Amino acid sequence: MSTYQIPKLTLVGAGPGAEDLITLRGIKALQGADVVLYDALVNPTLLEHAKPEALKVYVGKRRQALRYTQEQINTLIVDLAFTHGHVVRLKGGDPHVFGRGNEELQYADSYNIDTEFIPGISSAIGVAGLAGIPVTQRGISESVWVVTGTTREGTLSDDVLQAARSNATVVILMGVHRLDEIVEIFKKEGKAGTAIAVIQNGSLPGEQYVLGTVDTIATLVAAKNMAAPAIMVVGEVVRQHSRFQLEQIAQAHLIY
Amino acid sequence: MSTYQIPKLTLVGAGPGAEDLITLRGIKALQGADVVLYDALVNPTLLEHAKPEALKVYVGKRRQALRYTQEQINTLIVDLAFTHGHVVRLKGGDPHVFGRGNEELQYADSYNIDTEFIPGISSAIGVAGLAGIPVTQRGISESVWVVTGTTREGTLSDDVLQAARSNATVVILMGVHRLDEIVEIFKKEGKAGTAIAVIQNGSLPGEQYVLGTVDTIATLVAAKNMAAPAIMVVGEVVRQHSRFQLEQIAQAHLIY
Repeated sequence: MSTYQIPKLTLVGAGPGAEDLITLRGIKALQGADVVLYDALVNPTLLEHAKPEALKVYVGKRRQALRYTQEQINTLIVDLAFTHGHVVRLKGGDPHVFGRGNEELQYADSYNIDTEFIPGISSAIGVAGLAGIPVTQRGISESVWVVTGTTREGTLSDDVLQAARSNATVVILMGVHRLDEIVEIFKKEGKAGTAIAVIQNGSLPGEQYVLGTVDTIATLVAAKNMAAPAIMVVGEVVRQHSRFQLEQIAQAHLIY
Repeated sequence: MSTYQIPKLTLVGAGPGAEDLITLRGIKALQGADVVLYDALVNPTLLEHAKPEALKVYVGKRRQALRYTQEQINTLIVDLAFTHGHVVRLKGGDPHVFGRGNEELQYADSYNIDTEFIPGISSAIGVAGLAGIPVTQRGISESVWVVTGTTREGTLSDDVLQAARSNATVVILMGVHRLDEIVEIFKKEGKAGTAIAVIQNGSLPGEQYVLGTVDTIATLVAAKNMAAPAIMVVGEVVRQHSRFQLEQIAQAHLIY
C-alpha cells in the first residue's frame, strides 16, 4: 500500500454458514476491509463483499496441508494491520462461542491496534432453530447450555458431565467425533430416552440431520456417515421437530 | 387487499437492538412483508425496510396500555396471513431464546399456513460480546448457560440454582428485577467473589453497564437505577472487560 492506512482489527461473526445469515454490520465491515482473514467454516461467497483489491487470506484448520497456529494467526493480524490497514477477521458462527476471538482482539490491542467486535449468529442456537428445533420452549425447557466437545487438553469438557445432569437443553459443538463418549455420559444420568438431534452443515445446501434418542443416535449418525462440522442438541425440545415422530416410527422398523 | 395473497408466516429475529445487527435474510423478509408484527424490543427503524403500504402492528408488552396475550398474537398472525398474505413476525434477539416463537410457528402451521424461521443474534451472546465480554474463553470458561429469570409461573427458574453450581458462564435474561434473589443463590454456592456484569439496552445508544462481583452488583445496579431490558453475565470471563479492574478500584473507594 502506498498510502498509510490506520491499523484496525474488526472481528466479525459470519453466522452458521448460509451467505445471508451475516449481519448488515458485518457486510459493511467487509466492504471496508483492506484484508480479510477467513476460516474453514466461513462461506467463501462472503468474500465477494470485500473490495477486489482487498487481500483475502485463508487461515482455516481444514482443507489444506498448511495450518496456522493461533499464535501465527495473532501475529498475522498485527502484521497485516500495520502494513495494510483494516483487517477483517471473519469467523464462522459467533467468534466468542469457542472461537478464540477474544485472544485475537487482546493480542491486537496489546499493539495499540483499534479493535471492534461484530457478533454473529451462533450455530448453537441458529442451526437448531433453522432445523425446526427451538432451544427453549415454555413448559419444556427453561434454559440452554452450550458446551464444546473439544477442550484445550483434547479431552471432553467436565462441563458436559454437569450439563448431562441438568434440566437445560444441551447443545454440544465440535463433539460429533466423541459421540460415543457423550452418549455414555447421558445414559449414566438416566437419559437414554432423551431426544437428540445431530445436524451437519447446518443452514447450507449439504445440510443433513438425524433425530433420535440418546440410545439410538450413534447408530443413526454412523448410518449416514455424519462428521464435523455438526452440532448436537440434547433435550426434549428436539421432539418439537416436525419429523421427529415419523422418524422414530421409521427407525423402529429399520434398526431394531 | 384486492389480489389474493398466499398466507405465510416468517418469524424473524431482529437481534439485540441496533438496526444493523439483523441478518440480510431478515431484511429481505421485511422487504417482502404484507404485514409486520413487532415487539417492544425491536428497533422501530427496521420497519422502514418494509413496503410503505405494509401494515405495521405493534404487539409488544410495554409502552402501551393495550396488551396482547400470546393467544391473541397467535390468532392475529393467522387472521392477517389469510387476509393480507405474508406476515413477518419480528422479535428482539433470537425468537427461540425465551421468545415463544415456536408457539407462533406451530399455531400458524396448524392452519396449514407456510412458515419460515430466520434466526437472530441472541442478546445473551451478542450483547455480552459487544460489551467486550466473551461468553467463553480458553482457560476460563468452556461453556455458556443461558437462563431466563422469568418463568411461566412467575417464579425464578430452578435452572438458575443449577447454573449457579456449574462451571459455565451464566447469562440470565429478564432477571434484573430478581437481582437480589439471584445474588443470594450465587452466594450460597460460595460465589460471592465471582465477576458479574449487568448490561442494559445493549447495542443501543442508551446502553449502560456495571461491572462488579456477586457481592457488590446489587448496590451498583441500584446506584445507576438500572432496569429491564437488561442481561446479566456471571462468570470469570467478565474480568476480560477492558474496564473491569479500573471499575473495581473506583468502586472500592466509592461504596465501601
